[in-house]
Amino acid sequence: MTAAMTHDTVDFDPALDLVLQRDLNAPRHLIWRCWTTPEHLVNWFVPKPHRVTACHLDVRPGGACNTTFDVDGNVMENRGVYLEVVPEERLVFTDTYTEGWKPAAEPFMTAILTFEDLGDGRTRYTAVARHRTPENAKAHADMGFQDGWGTVATQLEAYARGLL
Amino acid sequence: MTAAMTHDTVDFDPALDLVLQRDLNAPRHLIWRCWTTPEHLVNWFVPKPHRVTACHLDVRPGGACNTTFDVDGNVMENRGVYLEVVPEERLVFTDTYTEGWKPAAEPFMTAILTFEDLGDGRTRYTAVARHRTPENAKAHADMGFQDGWGTVATQLEAYARGLL
Repeated sequence: MTAAMTHDTVDFDPALDLVLQRDLNAPRHLIWRCWTTPEHLVNWFVPKPHRVTACHLDVRPGGACNTTFDVDGNVMENRGVYLEVVPEERLVFTDTYTEGWKPAAEPFMTAILTFEDLGDGRTRYTAVARHRTPENAKAHADMGFQDGWGTVATQLEAYARGLL
Repeated sequence: MTAAMTHDTVDFDPALDLVLQRDLNAPRHLIWRCWTTPEHLVNWFVPKPHRVTACHLDVRPGGACNTTFDVDGNVMENRGVYLEVVPEERLVFTDTYTEGWKPAAEPFMTAILTFEDLGDGRTRYTAVARHRTPENAKAHADMGFQDGWGTVATQLEAYARGLL
């Protein structure tokens, strides 16, 4: 239960994993706070002008990671749980389960986020979206993973800087 | 991250979940130690005369929960991870992932164990085996879940009493 320090790396499988890495000009503790606090997350989590209309986060293994989006008037419900929480270092969540360890009918992905302090108030942010099948990974790429998560990383950086 | 106390209950779905409950005549801290320590676990974890021939446990969310059985000369490898660890209260593990949050090709179940201190050195032990589909739950029942997990609970109680 103390081995978190040994898990700074993520084993990457190009057939199943999509990855976005950015060096953000904002300190790690603020990036972490933006990811783990509903009142912050709603401000940057989807590409604008789409909106997060609801957010319930219970940031512990098995706790809810639920968000609702409004995309051009269409409501999208995203329900999941956190799998691993290492404050300011690593956050893992998935739609494979919902709260209470209930298996989802159609699990899509597991997100493995790592946050590295680069000094000078900068943070290396790495997001791995891991899929159960190569087909799901391809579908996610075709949905615009790089553009979407990239836009969101830019929004995150700008919003976090506003908290400085 | 402090909400563990609010999660003493397990939402039960009869279509997906198999459950075994036993009041064990052994104190909770020993039952917990038997479940989380390889050198203890190998002594009671499969119905005798079958044997556990290897055991690697990294008892934290995302840590390995790997065992190897010898069943009449057939080697069975079981690889998984812990999902939730609340010392002496709750232990959740699954074969849905292997270490490093790698999705398994054929996930079978999630085990949700709860341990309740009954006083007088006794422990209420509840094991829920949760499946992704009713078909998997039925297959597990047909494989002899109740007899197998029941035998193992009896072995666990006897072994834990030997540690008194």
